[in-house]
Amino acid sequence: MAKTIDVTELILRDAHQSLMATRMAMEDMIPACADLDQAGYWSVECWGGATFDACIRFLNEDPWERLRTFRKLMPHTRLQMLLRGQNLLGYRHYEDTVVDRFVEKAAENGMDVFRVFDALNDIRNVRRSIEAVRRAGKHAQGTICYTVSPLHTVEGFIEMAERLLDLGCDSICIKDMAALLKPHAAYELVKGIKDTCGSDVRVHVHVHATTGVTMVSLMKAIEAGADCVDTAISSLSLGPGHNPTESLVEMLEGTGFDTKLDKARLLKIKDYFNTVRPRYKEFLSNIIGVETEIFASQIPGGMLSNMESQLKQQKAADRLKEVLLEVPNVRKDAGYPPLVTPSSQIVGTQAVFNVMMGRYKVLTGEFADLMLGYYGETIARRDRHVIELANKQTGKPIIDCRPADLLKPEWQELRTAALALNGCNGSDEDVLTYAMFPQVATKFFTTRAEGAKNLGKQPDAQPAPVPHPAASAKPAAGSMIYDVKFNGHEHRVTVTPAA
Amino acid sequence: MAKTIDVTELILRDAHQSLMATRMAMEDMIPACADLDQAGYWSVECWGGATFDACIRFLNEDPWERLRTFRKLMPHTRLQMLLRGQNLLGYRHYEDTVVDRFVEKAAENGMDVFRVFDALNDIRNVRRSIEAVRRAGKHAQGTICYTVSPLHTVEGFIEMAERLLDLGCDSICIKDMAALLKPHAAYELVKGIKDTCGSDVRVHVHVHATTGVTMVSLMKAIEAGADCVDTAISSLSLGPGHNPTESLVEMLEGTGFDTKLDKARLLKIKDYFNTVRPRYKEFLSNIIGVETEIFASQIPGGMLSNMESQLKQQKAADRLKEVLLEVPNVRKDAGYPPLVTPSSQIVGTQAVFNVMMGRYKVLTGEFADLMLGYYGETIARRDRHVIELANKQTGKPIIDCRPADLLKPEWQELRTAALALNGCNGSDEDVLTYAMFPQVATKFFTTRAEGAKNLGKQPDAQPAPVPHPAASAKPAAGSMIYDVKFNGHEHRVTVTPAA
Repeated sequence: MAKTIDVTELILRDAHQSLMATRMAMEDMIPACADLDQAGYWSVECWGGATFDACIRFLNEDPWERLRTFRKLMPHTRLQMLLRGQNLLGYRHYEDTVVDRFVEKAAENGMDVFRVFDALNDIRNVRRSIEAVRRAGKHAQGTICYTVSPLHTVEGFIEMAERLLDLGCDSICIKDMAALLKPHAAYELVKGIKDTCGSDVRVHVHVHATTGVTMVSLMKAIEAGADCVDTAISSLSLGPGHNPTESLVEMLEGTGFDTKLDKARLLKIKDYFNTVRPRYKEFLSNIIGVETEIFASQIPGGMLSNMESQLKQQKAADRLKEVLLEVPNVRKDAGYPPLVTPSSQIVGTQAVFNVMMGRYKVLTGEFADLMLGYYGETIARRDRHVIELANKQTGKPIIDCRPADLLKPEWQELRTAALALNGCNGSDEDVLTYAMFPQVATKFFTTRAEGAKNLGKQPDAQPAPVPHPAASAKPAAGSMIYDVKFNGHEHRVTVTPAA
Repeated sequence: MAKTIDVTELILRDAHQSLMATRMAMEDMIPACADLDQAGYWSVECWGGATFDACIRFLNEDPWERLRTFRKLMPHTRLQMLLRGQNLLGYRHYEDTVVDRFVEKAAENGMDVFRVFDALNDIRNVRRSIEAVRRAGKHAQGTICYTVSPLHTVEGFIEMAERLLDLGCDSICIKDMAALLKPHAAYELVKGIKDTCGSDVRVHVHVHATTGVTMVSLMKAIEAGADCVDTAISSLSLGPGHNPTESLVEMLEGTGFDTKLDKARLLKIKDYFNTVRPRYKEFLSNIIGVETEIFASQIPGGMLSNMESQLKQQKAADRLKEVLLEVPNVRKDAGYPPLVTPSSQIVGTQAVFNVMMGRYKVLTGEFADLMLGYYGETIARRDRHVIELANKQTGKPIIDCRPADLLKPEWQELRTAALALNGCNGSDEDVLTYAMFPQVATKFFTTRAEGAKNLGKQPDAQPAPVPHPAASAKPAAGSMIYDVKFNGHEHRVTVTPAA
């Protein structure tokens, strides 16, 4: 008897977040839900910070309504979300009762599995949300953000798993957001957790495909005893996204492991998203191959494109190499945080500042907060000199408590502010939407009634061969031939004045 | 001490053959040769049927001159070629002395490693060329074309390896042209060959990336004892191509295996081909993800696009599904040949004929020859009824001898014909070029003096951000704003009349 390997399908959250800037409209997900629900997945990931944000920022969609729709359309499958611990789906720490309320409402609206992580791997930042998930009777998955540094060891990660289990987590996730988890490390880590914490502890493995090695890492993790792995249906896989679900299924043939997924359903899901993908062409990631330089630079793809655009805005695109060399220094000074939202942005932006203005001449507010302890503890001691600069620049004291301990109850205040907004429906869900993204939510509430927007466009018709100017037919009356430079391309086109 | 895993780099042959229709010009390969030569590869594959053909058909390049240039530019690295056994680089069987002459000349011009295969895995079709390689004192690599059928077994492939070694092969290659080799099978096959034939027998593994599972298969093959694996530098990898060289290097970290390749050189090679790739955009494969349906259909990607274009020419694109269902029937009737050049084309075209005109109402000449034994022996008995039809249609007898045994000495005749051609330089190399591709060579000899063509084009400039119409600056004097429909897109653009 082959051991069953569970699978979490990422197509509705991380896959389109990684490959099409989180722009996929609910309308384009609905037709796949019946097949997703019947294919035999352990869970379908469908909610998280970026999808919530994109719903109200770009798609004029109520993210809570999206969740309820998923619940209705996928009654047989666990719905899974990614939760940033005390940050919930936002970028700041929330006071504990807001955390409680958020988890309660997410559970009530249909969420089953909460994958809870903290960008610094500070266990104090995930404790409250894990407790809230347990209270709601849902699956609490404690997360280890995998990274590589002189201080990160297999033993350290195993210890973190133990502490997450002590909090009552139902399973452990190894989250490799930058595709740094190599096969040997994957094996050691999963085996270490199983050996130390017990073979009945569920271990889930989440990897990206960026470096081209992580399909092998999934194989090794499975050999070491992993219970569940994350993949995305092939039509929205690879590049900065994930390994293809169908390839996982095939890869395991004869190995003593079996996903038991329904291949015919997978084919239908694949074919369907193959029709969706080209409609979002303008949002598609340019990265189509692999990127192994990440192993040396430690800089994930998303962070790189962020820094590139920051430098371009300052007309300093030529200084990218300097910034790339500065990132490891800043990361070291900051105590080797894993580079994941929001720490990747904080470290990356400070590296840009250091190159443009001189090292630590100006600290960003967020970087100062990170140095002063307002995001939590880091694995290594942070640089004393930079901490002093942060203290001097901001006037804020250094802290070593759990950051949320400094926050005063804020639910009533958030509620009052939200209810005063035009278009707010008065529900706790709306208050939470406002709490996560105050400015974007304020605008969203006023436009919500207009209904969801779909940013997908009709795919290009097969491009017609460009006629050679000399060979082209005579233009219609009233038209003129122009040489047009558009998006950097030279075109000779026939145009008709707009009415 | 980690075991060294040797690597064959495919960038100069199979990578651009699989991903850019074999169009890369020698001019675009030359700048990478010094780094390729110094990176530490066991061999660099750089010659084969399609590259030879493309040289004279599209690039006005002398393939022998290309080989001599590689030899000069890569003095420290083995040069490797793919040879179709008795077919050499053409599509028919050649008489033995032509085979001898071809191998002798290839060796003389600088070839080190000859990977010799037969599309039917008929050992009689590779014997003569393997003998010729040995006589030339070069490395003879005997090849197993990997495929899946009710009759293909690990034991059968191991037996084939034994027979190839009996012929005096220096190594065995497992050639998986359709990415069908799954991890478990890869392990069993390599281990079986090592256990049966001896652990000192060199095993090389060649896989394509198409199905997304074969990076794992390489890992498993290495664990089973494989000595050398084939990869392509990442900027021209994946899709219907191969696994990325850099990912292989990284994947092995900590595993007890090590490629010992020079990562800094690989990065330079990668960066260089990243600049070449966009210039060949029009030839690039459309397949960028993975394709796992091949496991069910057994139809490799190249064969599929061939059949699609045949059907389109006959205005029957809507009958592709029927053809896909017919291919396995035709393959079965033909005795389960592996689907690789030329058997893939022969089986695919006959399947199209069967759907369009009724099953076996008309046989292609090649399919009739295949049924009658003129390509060699197949693993399974071929269908008796179809053999009779082939005999009736062509009047040719059924044969069971080695097909080349029926051929009369042809070197003098080829030589006389070649030397009569305008522009033929009288060398044995030119005679061989003519022998491989008589029509194309005839034309090539007349144009050779004009020098090589480079079909690469200047890449598109980086697209500028599209200005929002309302926010855009006032157009310059003399300009006008038009609504333009171009290639199916609606654009509002500012244009200036052409001078």
